[in-house]
Amino acid sequence: MTESAVNRRVLLAAYADGIPEAANFELAEAPVPTPDDGAFLVCNRYLSVDPAQRGYASAVVNYADPVPLGGVMRGFALGDVVASKHPDYAVGESIVGAFGWQDYAVSDGGDVLFRVAPDIEPRSAALGILGLSGMTAFFGLLDIGRPRAGETVVVSTAAGSVGSAVGQIAKIEGCRAVGITGGDAKVALCTGAYGYDAAVDYKADGLDAALGAACPEGIDVYFDNTGGAISDTVLGRLNIGGRIVVCGTAATASWDPPPVGPRIERQILVRRARMQGLIIFDYKDRFAEAQSQLAGWLKDGRLAFREEMLDGIETAPGAIRRLYDGRNMGKLMIRLRPDDEGG
Amino acid sequence: MTESAVNRRVLLAAYADGIPEAANFELAEAPVPTPDDGAFLVCNRYLSVDPAQRGYASAVVNYADPVPLGGVMRGFALGDVVASKHPDYAVGESIVGAFGWQDYAVSDGGDVLFRVAPDIEPRSAALGILGLSGMTAFFGLLDIGRPRAGETVVVSTAAGSVGSAVGQIAKIEGCRAVGITGGDAKVALCTGAYGYDAAVDYKADGLDAALGAACPEGIDVYFDNTGGAISDTVLGRLNIGGRIVVCGTAATASWDPPPVGPRIERQILVRRARMQGLIIFDYKDRFAEAQSQLAGWLKDGRLAFREEMLDGIETAPGAIRRLYDGRNMGKLMIRLRPDDEGG
Repeated sequence: MTESAVNRRVLLAAYADGIPEAANFELAEAPVPTPDDGAFLVCNRYLSVDPAQRGYASAVVNYADPVPLGGVMRGFALGDVVASKHPDYAVGESIVGAFGWQDYAVSDGGDVLFRVAPDIEPRSAALGILGLSGMTAFFGLLDIGRPRAGETVVVSTAAGSVGSAVGQIAKIEGCRAVGITGGDAKVALCTGAYGYDAAVDYKADGLDAALGAACPEGIDVYFDNTGGAISDTVLGRLNIGGRIVVCGTAATASWDPPPVGPRIERQILVRRARMQGLIIFDYKDRFAEAQSQLAGWLKDGRLAFREEMLDGIETAPGAIRRLYDGRNMGKLMIRLRPDDEGG
Repeated sequence: MTESAVNRRVLLAAYADGIPEAANFELAEAPVPTPDDGAFLVCNRYLSVDPAQRGYASAVVNYADPVPLGGVMRGFALGDVVASKHPDYAVGESIVGAFGWQDYAVSDGGDVLFRVAPDIEPRSAALGILGLSGMTAFFGLLDIGRPRAGETVVVSTAAGSVGSAVGQIAKIEGCRAVGITGGDAKVALCTGAYGYDAAVDYKADGLDAALGAACPEGIDVYFDNTGGAISDTVLGRLNIGGRIVVCGTAATASWDPPPVGPRIERQILVRRARMQGLIIFDYKDRFAEAQSQLAGWLKDGRLAFREEMLDGIETAPGAIRRLYDGRNMGKLMIRLRPDDEGG
């Protein structure tokens, strides 16, 4: 541990009502912890910035308990084992887990998500296209959406880290892929780098008409990262037997109380639609299957991805807000130190 | 054709905005039609009164085209073949099909749903527990809801023709069955004749608390015949991995425009719920499977059912409204003539 005698940590200072802002957090320093028997010390290299963290920083019921006030902000990280008294984890191993927004974490292995293969390039891809983002797209589309060749797959936040993978996997499966995204630059990214057949700008007028033009045979699978008014529009064009993968609710800033919108039960009934929620952690036993397939597609040049890298832990408090301001153009993460700097 | 020289018919006179009332229809007489080669004449005995008819009488998009103005009201009927030039249908056969709200219909067989076994007693059960009602419960619960023994199944309109069958099949499958219904009489019917473990009155105060007391381990399957505020309450108590069978939307009088309610996408996501619409006609190829199983349970005394019989075609125009006023206590149908009166 050459580069840091202290453990810099991002603490949750106040619960967020809606999107967590920088003011909800505070930076603090603590001694670097020492692992006991059966534990190891991980030195974090990259912190992941994820929409799920909105829930961790909220006091409202969610799929994970809120982070306690004053506690280290929960989050995923890619790190290296730098000291170990654990039989299954050796110094030098690279792992991804819920190590929190801090330089160092002690783990008994229970918060490890997966080990990172040594040949991944760039290794930060383990937090994106080969990590939770890519796997969310993989299982959400294939296991829940179940697209058949020739069907039309629509994706919201189509240029994001999950959405862009969904669109590309839909193309690999022989589907028509249509993206919904915000602004000309992201529309161009969708139809360019990510190979969508069409992309529509939800910020422009006439989303419904644009969607109709982009989906002349209707919509069979909707991979929903936004909810809200965008999803209301998509639902109106869903084919009979259509499937809705509920992966995120980016369009809604606060769920306390829930916003109102048009009731959808009649649409679900008339269209015999299936709407199902996805939390990637439910697939932990199948991560290897997804990572193997994704790595193969990546190697074959069939998957493009983008990363947006922030530098330094001091960027973390304001990072979640960036997911929602429409500017970021790829998997958002924070680099704590260069790969070639000793742990 | 001894008893009627004319074909009395119920025509759609005006589209309904919401629940069709008697004023939306008119009674008219026409000559009894004669079947051409490849067709047969059916004499209707019982007309079925179904929530789906609300959609048939509405100009709003639905899963079936609206009935044209001035046309015979679409509806299912149990009838006897009384003349035939069709190779597959013989005089004397009893069938259920979309023969419309009239005394006589000519059919080429395309609107036949199924043949009625000669040993059914009462034969009107072919429009209820052994017909579309029972089969809707059967496929909706078992094929979409997929309950496991020990799970809690909640049913809305629990004392109705579909709901009461759902509750009883849930018990047969080893589940805890909890009904939601309106008023003390129906609550008693649920926990009495239909064997629900508990039933709650949505018209009383404190539905959420009552549901919580009735479902101490949460809700795994919700068979939803109402939508609306009742379903919002149920959703709040759904377990992770819960399933919602969307079978009807009785709580909403008009879908033009759709009413608003709390958005549910976050609930679906956080609970990894699956919500899926059911239209029984999609299961036509599997009707025999359901009818065989239902008939077996009926014979073994494991299925109770109720019928509410109106007499005479002149009761038809006001019949759909009766489905929604909370008074009817079983499968609602109209008897056109007694079983022992010649066709």
